[in-house]
Amino acid sequence: MDSLFGGRLLVCQQRDGYRFSIDAVLLAGLSRIQPLDRVADLGTGCGVIPLILGFRRLGSEIVGFEIQPELVELAYGNVEINKLDDKVKIIEMDFRKIGLSFPPESFDVVTCNPPYREVDSGRVNPNLQKALARHEISCTLRDVFSAAHYLLRHQGKLMVIYPATRLDHLLTVARDYQFSAKKLTLIYSRPGSSARLVHLECRKGGGEELQIEPPFFIYDDGGEYTAAMRRLFDD
Amino acid sequence: MDSLFGGRLLVCQQRDGYRFSIDAVLLAGLSRIQPLDRVADLGTGCGVIPLILGFRRLGSEIVGFEIQPELVELAYGNVEINKLDDKVKIIEMDFRKIGLSFPPESFDVVTCNPPYREVDSGRVNPNLQKALARHEISCTLRDVFSAAHYLLRHQGKLMVIYPATRLDHLLTVARDYQFSAKKLTLIYSRPGSSARLVHLECRKGGGEELQIEPPFFIYDDGGEYTAAMRRLFDD
Repeated sequence: MDSLFGGRLLVCQQRDGYRFSIDAVLLAGLSRIQPLDRVADLGTGCGVIPLILGFRRLGSEIVGFEIQPELVELAYGNVEINKLDDKVKIIEMDFRKIGLSFPPESFDVVTCNPPYREVDSGRVNPNLQKALARHEISCTLRDVFSAAHYLLRHQGKLMVIYPATRLDHLLTVARDYQFSAKKLTLIYSRPGSSARLVHLECRKGGGEELQIEPPFFIYDDGGEYTAAMRRLFDD
Repeated sequence: MDSLFGGRLLVCQQRDGYRFSIDAVLLAGLSRIQPLDRVADLGTGCGVIPLILGFRRLGSEIVGFEIQPELVELAYGNVEINKLDDKVKIIEMDFRKIGLSFPPESFDVVTCNPPYREVDSGRVNPNLQKALARHEISCTLRDVFSAAHYLLRHQGKLMVIYPATRLDHLLTVARDYQFSAKKLTLIYSRPGSSARLVHLECRKGGGEELQIEPPFFIYDDGGEYTAAMRRLFDD
């Protein structure tokens, strides 16, 4: 059992399986979501992103989709223990087949922390939960954009977090699925290092001019969380 | 007559026509160029980029291409007054026709500060020199990549500076011409502002993983040049 926001949000996760990471906290914290937005989180794992959004009263309804039954069970439990059932729904589903069960254009925002390693790159973790979360085994970045394109209304927003080294690929796939890049934040571990992650907000449909936000630093020179980072899970 | 490096480099330019800007200083300063590299600068204007590289003894030979005769005259004069004729050549040429006069794959590095406004966007400056430098009248970003592809040896490097709002377009064009993005630096006017420019180093041929460098700030919070900026034209 882990906790965020000074113990006010509890997150139960498996000791050895997939565990949520700082990426999820960054994605939930950096995504601009309005109180009335209907939000879908693709590949929600233990539900950490819907939990954070629900805790912060962002989004009128947040639906987390997860393919792995054990993670769905955990996510159910997390919603219950945090009394967020009024806002957050968890659905066991392969979101590549979302067209079979959900009407199109029914969401304002989609969030996703997608797996980012190609199947033929790097050692695939022998723990299946971790492998599915990290490697593009059960879904690729294209699957994410395809599902988001189906789910979002025109001008709806997709928010993703992705390795900085693959920004190029991310922007290509976005364009291929008729999303225009709108806001890009480069995330650095610390001042002076290369960027580690990017947070991208893109919009279904064209015509946006890209705005590149001030850089976001996770740690300061002394190795402590920056004030910006602490705001994401302390406030 | 302007000067850089504490008066040690003199740059003559027209009062009313196209004038070099901070973009050129950033491009010359942020581009990693080896002493033995043969360098082509496309659309060199008054020659400021070859002058800075020559002054710093970077590149074995630097050839500046310029289409406008009056700017070519200025550039000639600037090379002479700074006694850089051993290193820097200025050639009057429309680089879209470079294949007629230059052998392919004859350079290690191409630099370019391209015009970046589409012809149908924004007021076109009534001063023709300024208009040609800013709007894609005499060349487009695709012309730049096409000429660079022709001039560069395999794995040669193209360095450009471009508006941050059009990063997406820049990466698309790079890929279309078989360049892989290798190093990207986001340039901010000051801490807390959105990025204004990007500096991209890309390589002819594939297989590079993108590295996003620490952010570069031109001014500090007090409105003074940062130490990093001063290094680009003071040292």
